[in-house]
Parts: sequence; C-alpha cells; structure tokens
Amino acid sequence: MSLSRSVCVVTLLAAACSVYAATPADLMITDGTVLTMNPENKVIEHGTVVINANKIIAVGGPELAEKYQAKKILNAEGDIVMPGLINTHTHGSMTVFRSLGDDVPDRLHRYIFPLENKLVSRDMVRIGANLANIEMIKGGVTTYVDMYYFEDEVAKTVDKIGLRAVLGETIINFPVADAQNADEGIAYAVRFIKEYKNHPRITPAFAPHAPYTNSTENLQKIAALSLELDVPVITHLAETDREKEEIAKRTGGKSPVQYMADIGVLNHKLLAAHVIMADDNDLALLKQYDVGVAHNISANTKSAKGVAPVTAMLEKGIRVGLGTDGPMSSNTLTTMNELGLVGKIHKLETKNRAAMPPLTVVEMATMGSARALHMEDKLGSLEPGKFADIIVVDTKAPNMVPMYNAFAALVYGANGANVRHTIVDGTILMEDRKLLTADEASVIKDAQIFAGKVRETVLASGEEVK
Amino acid sequence: MSLSRSVCVVTLLAAACSVYAATPADLMITDGTVLTMNPENKVIEHGTVVINANKIIAVGGPELAEKYQAKKILNAEGDIVMPGLINTHTHGSMTVFRSLGDDVPDRLHRYIFPLENKLVSRDMVRIGANLANIEMIKGGVTTYVDMYYFEDEVAKTVDKIGLRAVLGETIINFPVADAQNADEGIAYAVRFIKEYKNHPRITPAFAPHAPYTNSTENLQKIAALSLELDVPVITHLAETDREKEEIAKRTGGKSPVQYMADIGVLNHKLLAAHVIMADDNDLALLKQYDVGVAHNISANTKSAKGVAPVTAMLEKGIRVGLGTDGPMSSNTLTTMNELGLVGKIHKLETKNRAAMPPLTVVEMATMGSARALHMEDKLGSLEPGKFADIIVVDTKAPNMVPMYNAFAALVYGANGANVRHTIVDGTILMEDRKLLTADEASVIKDAQIFAGKVRETVLASGEEVK
Repeated sequence: MSLSRSVCVVTLLAAACSVYAATPADLMITDGTVLTMNPENKVIEHGTVVINANKIIAVGGPELAEKYQAKKILNAEGDIVMPGLINTHTHGSMTVFRSLGDDVPDRLHRYIFPLENKLVSRDMVRIGANLANIEMIKGGVTTYVDMYYFEDEVAKTVDKIGLRAVLGETIINFPVADAQNADEGIAYAVRFIKEYKNHPRITPAFAPHAPYTNSTENLQKIAALSLELDVPVITHLAETDREKEEIAKRTGGKSPVQYMADIGVLNHKLLAAHVIMADDNDLALLKQYDVGVAHNISANTKSAKGVAPVTAMLEKGIRVGLGTDGPMSSNTLTTMNELGLVGKIHKLETKNRAAMPPLTVVEMATMGSARALHMEDKLGSLEPGKFADIIVVDTKAPNMVPMYNAFAALVYGANGANVRHTIVDGTILMEDRKLLTADEASVIKDAQIFAGKVRETVLASGEEVK
Repeated sequence: MSLSRSVCVVTLLAAACSVYAATPADLMITDGTVLTMNPENKVIEHGTVVINANKIIAVGGPELAEKYQAKKILNAEGDIVMPGLINTHTHGSMTVFRSLGDDVPDRLHRYIFPLENKLVSRDMVRIGANLANIEMIKGGVTTYVDMYYFEDEVAKTVDKIGLRAVLGETIINFPVADAQNADEGIAYAVRFIKEYKNHPRITPAFAPHAPYTNSTENLQKIAALSLELDVPVITHLAETDREKEEIAKRTGGKSPVQYMADIGVLNHKLLAAHVIMADDNDLALLKQYDVGVAHNISANTKSAKGVAPVTAMLEKGIRVGLGTDGPMSSNTLTTMNELGLVGKIHKLETKNRAAMPPLTVVEMATMGSARALHMEDKLGSLEPGKFADIIVVDTKAPNMVPMYNAFAALVYGANGANVRHTIVDGTILMEDRKLLTADEASVIKDAQIFAGKVRETVLASGEEVK
C-alpha cells in the first residue's frame, strides 16, 4: 500500500525517509465512491478520506492513500462513502410506543398526549432513546435533532454511544412529566442548556412544542433566551389544519408563520419542523429571517396532513433539511428510508418526473440538513476541517447492483440496512453492521420489557392495543 | 419438545406409541407470530406452520408442534411468519439497467426502447433475471409475474433457483431482440407456453406489451389463444397520458379499458398492470370481466404518472395485487419496500389517515395478489392445502421493535432486509439471510461485468451514463 514506508524500511536513511514519510492519521477510508457533497457535489472514484482525531483532514483520489499512514484503514471496496445523514426532526424516545394506534384520527390529541401523560418517565426516555440511537446508527444517521422531555436523560445516552445531536427540551402549556407548566419547562430547559452548553457533540436547545401550545409571551421569552444563551430553538410550525385554524382565531386570520414573524420569534436560531401550511408570503418570511426547515415527508403523508411546498422552498433558497419525525409518526428513524419518498412525492405533486432529482434529495439529507441547523461550517459534507461524521453504504447488495449513478442508487434503491459502517466524530460506531459502542441485544430487550408495561397501561385504560 | 416421543422412547410399547406418535412432516416453523391471511385474517401468537412436500398441511398454536415430527424445524422465536410476497408485475432482467437515466422525460420511448434495442440478448436476460431472482428471495418475494423477452431463459433461472413465477413472453409491434414483429412474438410465446405448460412452479403466459403497441387483431388473437391454452395474459393498461390519447384517437374517444372491453379481450385470464387512467365506468368493466390488476405505486409515483384509484377498486371488489414494476421503474424488486408507500400515498390522496390501513396493505401484497393472478386457491395465505410459500420476518431488528401491531410494523417499519427466511414450494431458498440455491457473489459479479458493457454502449451512442 505504501511505497514510501517500504522505502524507509529498506534504506534506513532518516533524511530520505523524511522526504517520503507518510503523515500519520487516525483513520483512513480507501477505495470509496466518495460523494463529497462539497459545493461542486464532486464524486471521487476510488477515493480516499483521511481522518485525524475528530476531523476530516484530507479528501482525494487513490494517490492520497500513499501520503498517510493511518492507525486504522477501512477499505470501502468501491462502496459509497458519504457524509453521515442528519435527521433534522425526531422524538427518539417515542420508539417504545411505535406501531400503537397508527391510524387513530386526530391522533396527537386523542391518543398520543393521553398515552404520554401516563407513561413518560426518566426510565421511558432513556430506554426509548437507547433504541432510537442504535436504530439511527444502523441506518446511517450521525446527527439528530430531538424534541422530547427529560432531554438530560437523552443527552446521557447520546454522550455514551457517541452520536452527535441537537437536543431540545420541550416547553408546552399543560402539565407534562418533567414540568407542571410552560414556565417550569423553560426553567428545566435553561438548566439543561447550561449543563450541556460545552459538550463536544451535544447542542442543547429550547423546544417550544408549537405556536398553538405556547403563549405569545413565552414564545418571545424563549426566543430572547436562545439569543442570549446562543442555542437553537426547535418547534413544530404550520403542521396541521387544526393549528392553522387556532392561530387564525387567535390573531384575526394570520397564518402560523406570519404570526411567528409578527411576534418577533423568527430568526436564524429557529428550526421549524413540517411547515406544510405555508403560502408564498410565509416562504418569503422564512427566507427573510433565515429560518431552518425540517421536511418530514413520511410522517406528513402517513398522517394525511399534506405535502410541504419544498420545491418552492428550495427555489427561494430556504434552508431545508430532511427529518423522520418521531417513530410513532414515520415509523423509522433513518432518513435513508425517506429518500425515495421525497423524490416520488414531489414528482407526483409537480407532475414532473424530472422534479426533485436524486442529487437534490441526497443534498437535502446531508448539506441541506446541516444548513437547516445552521451548522454547514461543521457538518454535511466530506471536506477537510469538517467533523468526521461519515457513512459507508454497501453497493454489492442485490438491491444496489449495478450502480451507474450513486445518487439514484441511494435514493431509489437503498434502505437503512445497506449502511455498512457509521463513523461519528472520528470514532467508528458501527463496523460491518456490528455496533461497537452499544449492546444491541440488551437495548432491544429493555425496550421489549418496557413495551409490556405500555401494553398493560393501554389495556387498563380500556383501549385496545392495536 | 415432544412429550409424545419421549413417552414412546421410555415405554417402548408399540401400541402406546401409535396412540401418541407424532405425524412425520418435512418442515415445521414454530413459535411464530403467524399472519395467516386466511378469510378472517387470523393472527396466531406462538404459532406453528407444518409443511409436507410442497404443501402446508397444518397451521395452529404451539400445541400443534407436539403433534408433528419434522425433519427440519425453524424456530421463529416470535418473528412474523406470513405468506410469501407475490410481486404481480415486473421486468426482472432489466436489473442490469437499474439507475440509468432515471429522470429522462418520456423515458420509455426516448431511453428504454433504444437501450433495449442495442442490448437485449439471451445473456442479458439470464444475467438480469439471476440478479432479480436473488433480490426477490432476499426481499421475501416467493412468486413473481414477469414480462420480458426470451422468457424461456428467465424460466431456466426460475426453475433452477426454486422460485414460483408467472412468465409472460412480450408481444409488441416493432422489431425486438427475440421477434421481428408481433406475429413472431405470438409464435415465440406459443412455443414457450407449450414447453412450460406443465412445470410445477412456472406458469407461462402471453404478454402483449400494451394496447397502443399491439393491433386490435393481435390482441384478439392472443385472448383467444390464452383461453384455448388456458394461460394468463399480462399487459400494461391505462398507464400513461400518451396511451390514453393514442387509444382515444384510434377509437374516437374511448378510454383504454373501454376499448379493451369493446374488442372482447377483457376476461378472467387478464392481469392488467397499472390501470391509473381509469374512471368509474372503467372500474365497472374490470369488475364485470373479472380482470386482475397489478398496482405499482412506486413506479407510478416515481414517473409522475399518477395514482391508480385503488381505494375505489377495492370498494368495488376488483382483484388488486401489488407489484414493483421493473427495476428501472421502481427501483427495487420486493413489494416489502412498497408497503409503506401504498399506505401513505392513498392516505394522502384521500386526505384520510385511516384510509388504506396496514392490514389492507398486507392483504394486497399476499391474498390480494393471489386473487389478481386468479391463484387464490393455491397461494396467498397460510392454510392447509396451499403451496408452502412462506417468509419469516425479523421482529428483533431495531426498526421492528416494539411490535404492538404486526401489520403496522410490516407496513410502516419493515424493509426487505428484515426478511430472515424465504421458503418456496416447501424448499428453504434463504435461511438467516443466506441464499441456499444460488451463489450470490457470482450473480452480482456477472451483473457488474455486464454493466460494464452497458456503460460502453451508452457512451458509444453519445449519451451520458447518468
């Protein structure tokens, strides 16, 4: 592999060695079909990615492999090497409820809120987050944005397993497991943010649930605190007809986005999930205030809520990333399983098979998602200086053969199980499908035991488990 | 496991033994979450399925396992045991072209037909079919309906690998690789049908490509031959705007379905793929003539053609099954990857989250597909007397945990890679993800080598490989 090192050994001439010596590195991925997702979306055949500590230090062709001596080498054997997926919106701990009451009308208010009222606890949050974490690593997600309760518990799981995450503590105007009201929620969030503000992989955040479940005053207070503490705000926005009606009633006919603009809470710290009910004026506001948007196509279609105007958002240069939404909504947690749906639905909506091409979809799942998080300087592409968050996707599985176009193969052919290796912050979290920082069987077992408790609780309340 | 056998061994009393003796069987699946898909859609927890030769001989609870002594036992350990998926429409050999020119407008006429003109051969058909076969087995498909050229080559691969298939030889009114015109195509099909008419797993068929690529006279001739030879007819029907316009021009405004009815070719032998452009009158005709329909949601949305009115079809009692369409269209070959899309698109279309619930979707992929093929007496459910075409789906993978509702877990959570075992005609074709009747690596290698030839051909024609 390394002629330069052989020469050193043979000649034993220190001076000659220093001329040819390979630069040390921690990890190197060789012979990949490297989708850099850099500004030119350059694809490198037989490409090399070099990592030192937690950063990418070089990206190039096969010749680059000769210049570095890495402690560990992953030979991609032609497989796709690409930036890790960034899941811009989920509620990871809700894995423990997955496949319950999927088709209940007005499900959030009639089913999910009452269920959570009975069952959310620190234990539930930890058990559910552990399951979500392993599912995401196995599906190629390296960074995720979470919104739930007891986010300090989620943070412990993320810290331990080695993922990167933006964790938003929920603030909502009714009693929940970790706060009796929104003011307590804000206080909880502030404590959590101060505790995790300097974590290398965790970005703590405020997560006011939605405009219709928070007062104007609190939304403004949260926006001010987020600027003061320099952390993101995550919220659901313009998601449902019910929300649209409630905000219109409250404001004399304003749209949810217009309302948020008028009360002064739209800004570059905000990441808005869904944004389905948005007209051209709303999109102009999102662009003007540099708001990030999380597009959750699977959840939005499964709930029959509608399709966010993402083609128009991209045309206007709005920061749009891809999310799965929670596991009761989508129901899987890797955006790898969403790529095809994004392409297909937007082609169908625009009646144009050339709309939303594979490159655009992969871009949305990587650099677009980094931009939605305002983290495009650190994440989303394979470029020197960025965090080493990288996945390798099998191209020899029958569903991936042949591969004339890597983007098309990913979007129309791949699923989460095609991810071979997942690397976060320079650390390999999964190698050849084996998790290295978690005990998969024990995580599954814990979730199954908790599911027994969920089943009993649902039955005790007189409902069916279905 | 078997108290009865222990008693026999201990007592050594032949008379007592005969009372308690277990009945011999070839294969038994134990401890499954058995989705029978019988008329009551019964689900059996800790269920047992017993197979002898190529048939299911018993289905029941855990007690059934005591009554049989099987040569081979697969302990499902709680996993889903269900009828194998029936893919009602594909063009398997086109795997070798997958991911080429995905977003070209009017792709069939501008891209696919010219490409096939240069590259279809017996070699291509065999190599592509081998790849399609392994992808389907790995994705849980046990029966598929194919429409392509040199179907006798496809038949050899199906015979060898052990799948079940309905294989339709294409008839089309321009020169193709295996026929200079439609008459030669009919002659080829008749020879093929006579050769395979009595194969235990292969049903040969006529496959007139579409009403707009065949003359009225030939469509009528094929319909008559299919009744005479007692074999199915497979065709594309009401798929595109272009077809609708051409048929309307030819007939003074008739819809494709109305035209087919008027020329007398709609009957119980016909399986029509797509049926997107169909109004209530068309649906009434499909019901009246007992035509089967293959719904190809993924291909139809990816090509922005539209959504077939499947909710209405099911309400009218039309025989609707699920298909993937060819690998240039969908681009994967197991309907397991289509289940979620069927649910989501029809919920979106009807603006109703309760529409197209998981049970209906799984039914469409199994019994519904058997009905579309008019093979509901032999396939599609786990009932004694039916062919032993069975799959076992992992429920301990992170994306399948927990499982409150097996149908929801399959439709919203599963992908093809969750299939553990695939059994066709009583023979295990895949056990714990390992193919037993094919050499996966060599099939992949052959396809990759052929892809090199495809690449050269496309480049030589002055087009880009993209």
